[in-house]
Amino acid sequence: MAITLGELAERLGAVLQGGSPSSRITGVATLRNAGADDLAFLANTAYRKHLSGTRAGAVVLDAKHADECPVAALVTANPYATYARAAALIVPRAPDRSGIHPTATLGPDCQIDATAWVGPHCIIESGVRIGAGVQLAGNCFIGAGCRIGAHSRLSPNVVVCHDVSIGERAVIQPGAVIGSDGFGLAMEDGRWLDVPQLGGVRIGDDVGIGANTTVDRGALEDTVLEDGVRLDNQIQVAHNVHIGAHTAVAGCVGISGSAKIGSHCMIGGGAGIVGHLEIADNVVITGMTMVTRSITEAGVYSSGVPAQDNTSWNRNYARFRQLDRLARRLQALERELAARDGRREGRD
Amino acid sequence: MAITLGELAERLGAVLQGGSPSSRITGVATLRNAGADDLAFLANTAYRKHLSGTRAGAVVLDAKHADECPVAALVTANPYATYARAAALIVPRAPDRSGIHPTATLGPDCQIDATAWVGPHCIIESGVRIGAGVQLAGNCFIGAGCRIGAHSRLSPNVVVCHDVSIGERAVIQPGAVIGSDGFGLAMEDGRWLDVPQLGGVRIGDDVGIGANTTVDRGALEDTVLEDGVRLDNQIQVAHNVHIGAHTAVAGCVGISGSAKIGSHCMIGGGAGIVGHLEIADNVVITGMTMVTRSITEAGVYSSGVPAQDNTSWNRNYARFRQLDRLARRLQALERELAARDGRREGRD
Amino acid sequence: MAITLGELAERLGAVLQGGSPSSRITGVATLRNAGADDLAFLANTAYRKHLSGTRAGAVVLDAKHADECPVAALVTANPYATYARAAALIVPRAPDRSGIHPTATLGPDCQIDATAWVGPHCIIESGVRIGAGVQLAGNCFIGAGCRIGAHSRLSPNVVVCHDVSIGERAVIQPGAVIGSDGFGLAMEDGRWLDVPQLGGVRIGDDVGIGANTTVDRGALEDTVLEDGVRLDNQIQVAHNVHIGAHTAVAGCVGISGSAKIGSHCMIGGGAGIVGHLEIADNVVITGMTMVTRSITEAGVYSSGVPAQDNTSWNRNYARFRQLDRLARRLQALERELAARDGRREGRD
Repeated sequence: MAITLGELAERLGAVLQGGSPSSRITGVATLRNAGADDLAFLANTAYRKHLSGTRAGAVVLDAKHADECPVAALVTANPYATYARAAALIVPRAPDRSGIHPTATLGPDCQIDATAWVGPHCIIESGVRIGAGVQLAGNCFIGAGCRIGAHSRLSPNVVVCHDVSIGERAVIQPGAVIGSDGFGLAMEDGRWLDVPQLGGVRIGDDVGIGANTTVDRGALEDTVLEDGVRLDNQIQVAHNVHIGAHTAVAGCVGISGSAKIGSHCMIGGGAGIVGHLEIADNVVITGMTMVTRSITEAGVYSSGVPAQDNTSWNRNYARFRQLDRLARRLQALERELAARDGRREGRD
Repeated sequence: MAITLGELAERLGAVLQGGSPSSRITGVATLRNAGADDLAFLANTAYRKHLSGTRAGAVVLDAKHADECPVAALVTANPYATYARAAALIVPRAPDRSGIHPTATLGPDCQIDATAWVGPHCIIESGVRIGAGVQLAGNCFIGAGCRIGAHSRLSPNVVVCHDVSIGERAVIQPGAVIGSDGFGLAMEDGRWLDVPQLGGVRIGDDVGIGANTTVDRGALEDTVLEDGVRLDNQIQVAHNVHIGAHTAVAGCVGISGSAKIGSHCMIGGGAGIVGHLEIADNVVITGMTMVTRSITEAGVYSSGVPAQDNTSWNRNYARFRQLDRLARRLQALERELAARDGRREGRD
Repeated sequence: MAITLGELAERLGAVLQGGSPSSRITGVATLRNAGADDLAFLANTAYRKHLSGTRAGAVVLDAKHADECPVAALVTANPYATYARAAALIVPRAPDRSGIHPTATLGPDCQIDATAWVGPHCIIESGVRIGAGVQLAGNCFIGAGCRIGAHSRLSPNVVVCHDVSIGERAVIQPGAVIGSDGFGLAMEDGRWLDVPQLGGVRIGDDVGIGANTTVDRGALEDTVLEDGVRLDNQIQVAHNVHIGAHTAVAGCVGISGSAKIGSHCMIGGGAGIVGHLEIADNVVITGMTMVTRSITEAGVYSSGVPAQDNTSWNRNYARFRQLDRLARRLQALERELAARDGRREGRD
């Protein structure tokens, strides 16, 4: 799809600098690979070195770097967001479909909007409501009583178990599972008894859920993802977790049962969050950190251990195993020196 | 479904205190949200603060807390297990189905019990045996030669590869994969060669397997999950692992090849277990711990690192990198002081 | 399938020692369980103790252990690789199928080789090219414009999103997702904006991808897995990652966006690799290690923390929280002693 620089500037609210408004853009590319018909962007200063040599048709960047731009520039306060909007204009996604594929199976009492698409081999159980423009790609399972809000997009092989409510404009990647039974176990006479998982999952608007991520249903009340939450791939969200609005969670994170995470948090990849605790708004958890207590103040929290060469690591870790003893030996030395001072003063 | 308090007490073996045996219970809820028709429970003392204000129809709790209960009580030694049984009585799950959906495909020589349900788009390969009352929800794949024991329940999009044996009453959540090829690789002239994975998977009775969890088949002998094992979501069980009876494994755990885990163990979320080692019965591994050696005694083992604020963490971790040197400096100080004592004694 | 020891020796390039070339082998087994018709192998010296008592028909081993072998031996420099080849000869896998199952759905403009197999309920979108002998087991989704090279094998419930290119002889385990949208987010006015993910995934020849592993498509350029890469189960490969040839990655690893990993690396289970960094060829990362900076030299790198009994762990970790202060106290002691030396020298 071709769009002129002038139209782009107008639709993005950006200032066009040093280029013809009638120049046509047909694609997007990196600063390094862009050609004369491509739009590139500079959002991460690590890539600034590629700016001077770029052959892009235009570059989205901020005012600070506008002078260095050798080609047309679309100047904006937030280049990454502006680029995101531009890319969606220049490379529109495949057109939506509508209708119900003949291989899909439908239970009774479903309300499926006429503009929605139910792809091949989808299984829709009883009492499901699917909103306008919803896209179910294929091989999806939607359990009894689910609601899927308008313009939500479910990729192939997504499973949504019964009584899950998903808001509008959700984007759910392949293999995600929403509403599986939580891990509720009671021990009785040496055997585990499954505790019935009777809650649902409530998902707000504009939520993204990554590939093969799992979100368990609540035990009694609901598991909740508020508006704008973004979950990457391979994440585990346990029963009764509550994730606040616009919190983003990177891949491979595990969140244990009944944890309550604030809004606008960022959880780094591979982090683990223990159950039954609260995390305040605007908290950043760095990668592979384990959160074991509530966090009551915004800020950055860490416990991920960076790699060392194996020899140093083994040597340092061996000392870690003795760390309590080392600390006691240090204390003993301090006392010994203080005692000598005492004796010396006594002698003096 | 309505049930009287008297009937509940009788079926659960609990003592009804301070309530009419003919009162009817129709739902379950938390202490905080329960109404006059709901059963609530107190199993975790963290929620004791909600007991005095509850408006539940009745509360399941132990004798220690019975006096504090403002409403009818069902008194029992194990409130959580008693609640689990009660909830299953009060909120029965959707009735089982039977038959084979016309969109399912069946290979030759299968024996599928007439009371079992094979849902839409299931693929059953040759020689599969499926027991009484088994429920295959839909989009499931059951490979050649598998056996699935009576009353097992497979959620949508579960894959069971060939020659896997599953006992009775298994509950398998969506997206779980059982019997995938193990990660067996031989290096030859700079290239990996796949080592054929010729074993199967043997799963006992009453086993639970979480959403998107993977259990690889054995290389030569079988991967084994004994009776009553419970696996949460997003777990990886490698080839030839053996997990003892009634061991529970929380989400995101990775268990490497040929690890042998005892019975009645509890493995915390995100833990990692190295291959070719043994863990005794009744071992508890806390969250995000890495087990690198066999554990021969029951007890609690840990190496998960709790979060600190990022500034403290960086400062402490910088010292950790020097820990071996710090320990040597401490030793040098100790020697120096001992040497001075020697010199002083010499002088004295 | 029966094969003689003589034929095995010839086809494997091994030297038959102490056995009749006409003896027939019909199976493979461990040293401990093998019977007279089975081939066993000794590749890991931990199992050497089982050699003297083996009743195998023959054992694959190296020259160093040939003298200890109580039965026929197939002597070779690389017993594990030789065993892998032997097992594939002795226990051939189920024969390939060809054709398109009537329940599969096909988009327009697909080129599916007549020798390929498209199993039940597969969804093949438009413009897909599938090479000779490819096996798609069932419930697979192949997005628009994908290419799947000859003799690749996709297990059930694999999802390959649009515009993904897979080389020849790939082996993809169940539930794997290739080409899901990467986690590209721009923050604008307190809300996340999805950055269109417009790149693809390029996968070389002879690549293995584990069960429920996810490989995201690139943001602008492609995510790349070079020839011979092996990924285990439950791995997350983010957008624009590049993994060099013959690198093997164990289960539960997370690799963040734009990380570039060299060839012939080995990444241990549960490791995490931060984005936008480079790892040299021939690097070994041990289990549960977090790589936060580029690694420029081959070698072994670690930060996975081995378990201790919980009491010791808590004691040592409490000291770790004070480690910077402990280090300062050590330094203070050193200075104090040096100052005393100064004073003493002054006095002397």
